[in-house]
Amino acid sequence: MTDFADRHIGPDRESERRMLDSVGYGTVDELMDAAIPEVIRWHGTLDLPPAASEAEVIAELRALADRNTVNVSMIGNGYYGTHTPAVIRRNVLESPAWYTAYTPYQPEISQGRLEALLNFQTMVSDLTGLTTANASMLDEATAAAEAMTLARRASKTKSPVYVVDADTLPQTLAVIEGRAEPLGITVLVTDLSAGPAALPAEFFGLHLQYPGASGAVRDHSSLVAAAHEAGALVAVAADLLALTLLRSPGEIGADIAAGTTQRFGVPMGFGGPHAGYLAVRAGLERMLPGRLVGVSRDADGAPAYRLALQTREQHIRREKATSNICTAQVLLAVIASMYAVYHGPDGLRSIARHAHSHAARLAAGLRAGGVSVADEAFFDTVTASVPGRAFDVVAAAASRGVNLRLVDADRVAIACDETTVAAHLSIVWEAFGVPEFSGASSAALPSDLARTSDFLTHPVFHEHRSETAMLRYLRRLSDLDYALDRGMIPLGSCTMKLNATTEMEPISWPEFANIHPHAPASQTAGYRSLISSLETWLAEVTGYDAVSVQPNAGSQGELAGLLAIRGYHRSRGDLERDVCLIPSSAHGTNAASAVMAGMRVVVVACDDEGNVDLVDLDAKIAAHASRLAAIMVTYPSTHGVYETGIASLCAKVHDAGGQVYVDGANLNALVGFAKPGKFGADVSHLNLHKTFCIPHGGGGPGVGPIGVRAHLSPFLPGDPLGAGADSAGVAVSAAQHGSAGILPIPWAYLRMMGAEGLARATGAAVLAANYVAVRLREHYPVLYSGNKGLVAHECILDLRPLTKATGVSVDDVAKRLIDYGFHAPTMSFPVAGTLMVEPTESEDLAELDRFCDAMIAIREEITKVGSGTWPRDDNPLANAPHTAAMVSGDEWSHAYPRSVAAYPFGVSRVGKYWSPVRRIDGAFGDRNLVCACPPPEAFE
Amino acid sequence: MTDFADRHIGPDRESERRMLDSVGYGTVDELMDAAIPEVIRWHGTLDLPPAASEAEVIAELRALADRNTVNVSMIGNGYYGTHTPAVIRRNVLESPAWYTAYTPYQPEISQGRLEALLNFQTMVSDLTGLTTANASMLDEATAAAEAMTLARRASKTKSPVYVVDADTLPQTLAVIEGRAEPLGITVLVTDLSAGPAALPAEFFGLHLQYPGASGAVRDHSSLVAAAHEAGALVAVAADLLALTLLRSPGEIGADIAAGTTQRFGVPMGFGGPHAGYLAVRAGLERMLPGRLVGVSRDADGAPAYRLALQTREQHIRREKATSNICTAQVLLAVIASMYAVYHGPDGLRSIARHAHSHAARLAAGLRAGGVSVADEAFFDTVTASVPGRAFDVVAAAASRGVNLRLVDADRVAIACDETTVAAHLSIVWEAFGVPEFSGASSAALPSDLARTSDFLTHPVFHEHRSETAMLRYLRRLSDLDYALDRGMIPLGSCTMKLNATTEMEPISWPEFANIHPHAPASQTAGYRSLISSLETWLAEVTGYDAVSVQPNAGSQGELAGLLAIRGYHRSRGDLERDVCLIPSSAHGTNAASAVMAGMRVVVVACDDEGNVDLVDLDAKIAAHASRLAAIMVTYPSTHGVYETGIASLCAKVHDAGGQVYVDGANLNALVGFAKPGKFGADVSHLNLHKTFCIPHGGGGPGVGPIGVRAHLSPFLPGDPLGAGADSAGVAVSAAQHGSAGILPIPWAYLRMMGAEGLARATGAAVLAANYVAVRLREHYPVLYSGNKGLVAHECILDLRPLTKATGVSVDDVAKRLIDYGFHAPTMSFPVAGTLMVEPTESEDLAELDRFCDAMIAIREEITKVGSGTWPRDDNPLANAPHTAAMVSGDEWSHAYPRSVAAYPFGVSRVGKYWSPVRRIDGAFGDRNLVCACPPPEAFE
Repeated sequence: MTDFADRHIGPDRESERRMLDSVGYGTVDELMDAAIPEVIRWHGTLDLPPAASEAEVIAELRALADRNTVNVSMIGNGYYGTHTPAVIRRNVLESPAWYTAYTPYQPEISQGRLEALLNFQTMVSDLTGLTTANASMLDEATAAAEAMTLARRASKTKSPVYVVDADTLPQTLAVIEGRAEPLGITVLVTDLSAGPAALPAEFFGLHLQYPGASGAVRDHSSLVAAAHEAGALVAVAADLLALTLLRSPGEIGADIAAGTTQRFGVPMGFGGPHAGYLAVRAGLERMLPGRLVGVSRDADGAPAYRLALQTREQHIRREKATSNICTAQVLLAVIASMYAVYHGPDGLRSIARHAHSHAARLAAGLRAGGVSVADEAFFDTVTASVPGRAFDVVAAAASRGVNLRLVDADRVAIACDETTVAAHLSIVWEAFGVPEFSGASSAALPSDLARTSDFLTHPVFHEHRSETAMLRYLRRLSDLDYALDRGMIPLGSCTMKLNATTEMEPISWPEFANIHPHAPASQTAGYRSLISSLETWLAEVTGYDAVSVQPNAGSQGELAGLLAIRGYHRSRGDLERDVCLIPSSAHGTNAASAVMAGMRVVVVACDDEGNVDLVDLDAKIAAHASRLAAIMVTYPSTHGVYETGIASLCAKVHDAGGQVYVDGANLNALVGFAKPGKFGADVSHLNLHKTFCIPHGGGGPGVGPIGVRAHLSPFLPGDPLGAGADSAGVAVSAAQHGSAGILPIPWAYLRMMGAEGLARATGAAVLAANYVAVRLREHYPVLYSGNKGLVAHECILDLRPLTKATGVSVDDVAKRLIDYGFHAPTMSFPVAGTLMVEPTESEDLAELDRFCDAMIAIREEITKVGSGTWPRDDNPLANAPHTAAMVSGDEWSHAYPRSVAAYPFGVSRVGKYWSPVRRIDGAFGDRNLVCACPPPEAFE
Repeated sequence: MTDFADRHIGPDRESERRMLDSVGYGTVDELMDAAIPEVIRWHGTLDLPPAASEAEVIAELRALADRNTVNVSMIGNGYYGTHTPAVIRRNVLESPAWYTAYTPYQPEISQGRLEALLNFQTMVSDLTGLTTANASMLDEATAAAEAMTLARRASKTKSPVYVVDADTLPQTLAVIEGRAEPLGITVLVTDLSAGPAALPAEFFGLHLQYPGASGAVRDHSSLVAAAHEAGALVAVAADLLALTLLRSPGEIGADIAAGTTQRFGVPMGFGGPHAGYLAVRAGLERMLPGRLVGVSRDADGAPAYRLALQTREQHIRREKATSNICTAQVLLAVIASMYAVYHGPDGLRSIARHAHSHAARLAAGLRAGGVSVADEAFFDTVTASVPGRAFDVVAAAASRGVNLRLVDADRVAIACDETTVAAHLSIVWEAFGVPEFSGASSAALPSDLARTSDFLTHPVFHEHRSETAMLRYLRRLSDLDYALDRGMIPLGSCTMKLNATTEMEPISWPEFANIHPHAPASQTAGYRSLISSLETWLAEVTGYDAVSVQPNAGSQGELAGLLAIRGYHRSRGDLERDVCLIPSSAHGTNAASAVMAGMRVVVVACDDEGNVDLVDLDAKIAAHASRLAAIMVTYPSTHGVYETGIASLCAKVHDAGGQVYVDGANLNALVGFAKPGKFGADVSHLNLHKTFCIPHGGGGPGVGPIGVRAHLSPFLPGDPLGAGADSAGVAVSAAQHGSAGILPIPWAYLRMMGAEGLARATGAAVLAANYVAVRLREHYPVLYSGNKGLVAHECILDLRPLTKATGVSVDDVAKRLIDYGFHAPTMSFPVAGTLMVEPTESEDLAELDRFCDAMIAIREEITKVGSGTWPRDDNPLANAPHTAAMVSGDEWSHAYPRSVAAYPFGVSRVGKYWSPVRRIDGAFGDRNLVCACPPPEAFE
């Protein structure tokens, strides 16, 4: 019966034969022998369990799931029970149209998810009372850390002090502290419950939790005023659900709000993934890190969405970047935004009141039973004092199926949420040994903090109250977009391969979805076993000695890896080593991560073939020898080439006392054939959302584990709750295991592919890239190649000569590909004016040929522009993409017929995907920044 | 927090207020008081459990599921373990785009599922070696029964004898016998293993099982020849998986093949739903019952699919009908066809060999251990002799997690399938007390029956081998179609309401999906509890004393109800009562079912208001008094009116000794306000796929339980395995509980709505219909109304005057609605030249208004045709639907502009749904019948 590898890998044996013939090799092994430099080649079979069938893997995951215990969670601490509306689970989280989409860098074919993200921004902005929110952050802790660095940039004070109120979530504090140290920021943790008197004289920023980690709701206005007085900015980590009832951060004067949207329908997932948020007051919007959706207009002047202000982003600012955030949490942000769309303001208020009234009743019952409850004012969480009994109370509740939070030996915190019902309160009372309470309880929110301002007034939050309306809204938005379920997304360096359903199904199971990250270990044996296996397998694949899955994006993996290098040097007393060499071809995130890790970036040149210039490397090493901390290189290079100099490069850096960081972005070209941990690298991050099949989700979640050699393993990311205090490592995510909820995906992939399947996939990816290069080479120059003229897993098509000759740009070709039914390849990275194509192993030969045929047909169209058949400013390329409305318009005055516009070579007249808008003018939107939902009239 | 009823019911309170204002009532109660005749009105609150939330219902269903035990099934007997490919489960079974689609009566917007069904027909036709297959039958047993009646029609002999080989599945035999008796067919069950000598001299047909129920594979050629010699037709109930290795029925000369496609990826579901099949040799195709997809052409001459030969169908042939089959099993047929598309011929052969080789090894092991195995030749099932020990062996295996089939005290049958693995064989051997077998085993298929002919040679069965390709194929097909997830489907009498995700999710759970219908009762406590509750609740809703969920379509419910009436009369010695009165307005299926129940149909006239003419009723009763068996009426009537004469009608029939059958097709207009069992009816069938939210699935599955008053309860459908021998009832489906696998849907609906929610839904449906009637009345005459000018839950718009004046037909309006983004209402039923609109309670006011606005805009378009502004043969109505290819064509010579064609009033230029083909010429296809996949060149 059919192996999973035969489902995952597109070309069958017959197609492989034909592709090999084109490329000129007899077998894939011969091709790989020729393509991969022997100096890095690893000849062996990965030590992984034999490939299992889809049914076997589901059975194994079922067994792991059964080892997790789904208790009712009243732990709180930043993670809450929530009901994911089934219509949203099925039609977003479980819909390939949403989860196989790419980051909306081609906005014309991403209008659906851009609208959803604009809803998200509007939701955050409304609830926080701040003018601009981004979409989205990785979690609350990293959002809070970004708020800190934003405050530092925006504050006029020179003070390095960042004040954090003591009533802050512990994982947030851990990440803030980890981020602060390399940047020279001093974190001052203080109990501010008594007011501004406890503030220091000088500080650049203040972090407040609202409501506090203890559950207490305090009026922070005077603290905000005092901070502003001192020239500091104030960041409030606020619970969006509480904000439906409480005055917003904006209304109490905060400059920044940060937090999570997890409890808006996103399962806890043992810690993630969830969408964090970050919002700022007017004037700070251009300092926001991360992705920001804005409204602009298309070539017809119609409103259209796209990512705004991209010049702020790390991949452009490189070593001048102030944040490395890149991947967002789009899929989760969409879920959270749709939760708000579905419930609307009244529904959200009702859910908040539900949580609050249960908490109030709980507190009343405890008090009636003689248990002291700390605060008079709280939203959903109460902290109860049971001197010496806290452990017993928590254990008693857990044995009855309810998890509480053990604050310390004397205190227990209990959080209520949307899922709390009366029976849960009874169990808590019983665990505390107090009688069932049937008296009245009154609200415990301070009346002067009651929210009076409106929110979610836009019609989108009012029009989808029935499930039918919600279903159609989700369908309509996803229909606007192009995702992998429609066709190829040949994005170089982004690896848009199959996200198999069998990999995806288990993440919806309650035993994986509904586990709190701080649940007792006895309830998470299945998760921990899965994570342990996954780390072991990833170590085997990469050749490293240890792996941590904590980083919840590739960028966070980079930071974690560099922090490990930093920790290592410092542990040896090498306090001066702070130079990070980065080749000019590197992804911009590398430099941004180095800056965040407290390093100075020194750029190493590349030669004409795109390889690291070893002569310049020598010079740079010599210039910085004693301060050399690391080199960061991507392998295969961002040019899609197996550089032969890599081993030599590693040796040179090691000889100078530096560490070698190999960016694992292109690991999919190595799996089974080479191991970074064996050919000279000390640390790598991997991209589970690329090589290991976690879907891109329209721009996240990503997962970026790191692998390290043994000497760096003490510096792997530490537990944000400090439990793993034996680790010298710094926490980089809010949760110990990062986005644990989606780790069943790579686990399943590795389990189903096995050693042979993984190597076959690598070979198939390299074969496909070389096949495309061979087919297109005579039409477009292929920019770089390595051994024997071969590329690795992607190839760069050089448009620059054509652009010079005809005026047709890479943009024109990218947008014209939409008319042909394709997502564009990567544009102008790593080389401006080029397209980088990565077909992956999952595209079958028919689709590869359809793409090559389209590119060749476009080449012929370019010729017609060049020859003057079509004017430079009126041709199918310049006007692409063509919408249905345009080609069916009553007027047509273009120099080419409608049929050429709409149905170029190979495009079926039945079932064509139409771009919903024409080409978008990004600059217009940046000049006129609008980052919330426009009124419906704008679309008339 | 939001109740489920508020999600299910489209209009919110504010919308309800506005709609009531339009209709002229202060409250819904006042409206219902006015609309419903007091004589039938039931004033009470349904005795149902209080409404539960979505989360509570999922928890309750989880608890029920946990009471089922998912053992490995080696029971066989017509139901087999199968792996539903996850990509198909997620993107068909769990995709609203597939499951919320309607029957493809509007073929232009159903091309996706029609292609899938054509694949199904091609698959069945190829594998059975017969020229034409339909799509699809309800299960193997009813397909075999249809084969019997087809044989009788086609045979030239006068003999009433139908010979059934003794090695036939027991449930098939039960259904054949139940169907035969009222039709005067004599079923002769004979052991034909020794060959033709055991055949009688005269018979019209012969039924053979291939392979036999025992597992034996025999060469039936000589039996076929002998039957043909006698002028009889031969029907072979064949296992499609076995046919990948065995000579096909067509190749051994069979005239008809019947069976199930369950093991092609469709979960067992405790008995259903599964797609049955029926195929015939050339010459018999026009005698096929059920739906048949064929290839025709559209207005541009392009190939297009639609239902062929509709003149054969029961709803047209009425009392001349020979079958009542109506609803098919489209969703399951799509799954089975996609299983074949995904695996292809090689994959299917490989699965068949897997099952066979395990069976062969199993038999070898048993024999090596001294256990006698009956047959030398078998495919996947072996019958072993263990004199006196069978019960113990079965129990021993069950205790180890494997279910076997207890044939009798001395024999055990064991079936292998796609899911069988070596460990299962070990358990079986252990249960038999024989040693683990490690020797060799050879194939046990007779070499002279080895299949040598090709099958599934069409490219569609070869191009989707990777999961990526499969995913895209499923997306592309569903994108061609219009389903409820795009917009309103206002089909009168078909009730296209919300199919909530929470209702749908549990049917995928293994504890519901993977239960064999013959699993021991100890393993199905959850299912039986759920079914028992559902029957109880349905009895409460309908006012009957007992309910059976066995009928797996409304048509089968009709038959079951009429058979109960027949059984009742006969039990009282009233052998002569065989006249069934049916009003002229009745759905054609009623008459067809009456014929199948051995009754004579006498038509009762309707008056000008569409009500049953009570004077003619008196006359018909008088004419047939002593032979009066029953009257079948639909209530509210098929005209969408609450007839006031219903109570009087019931009394008249009862007085004459007849029974009253109320067709429950329109029960959704009564729930909570009237109970057929209380206002005079004796029996009704319900449509769980209409009133109780099972989705239409593109044309099935349906579920048609019957409710009866106490005196009929002994005649409820009996157990097809004969276990419930205390019942005098006839089995109408292969499985005791019919399509049990989808019963969690209505269970969840009833549980979440509760008494109040159900009544609210009824009120909302009636309000919506009256709102539409009020808004459209001045533009189109509303044909019938009842009390105070009110309609019930649907309204009929009379197009006949407009058609006469302008030439614009109901077809034109229906097709033009596609351009406006709607599915057409019901066309020309119950009155030719009209449209029947049923908005249901689930459409919100915005969508109702969008529909009314479209209808009004179309009315203005009709005026332009009438006034001569547009020619009668060239206007947006005559040319509708317009495809994107048409409106973006290089030439445009129509009398109206492209913008009017493409974007009429209210249609967004962004995200418009486009019909993939132009209007289809059905007659062309019927003249040139093609019912298998056309070659790809046809589309060039």
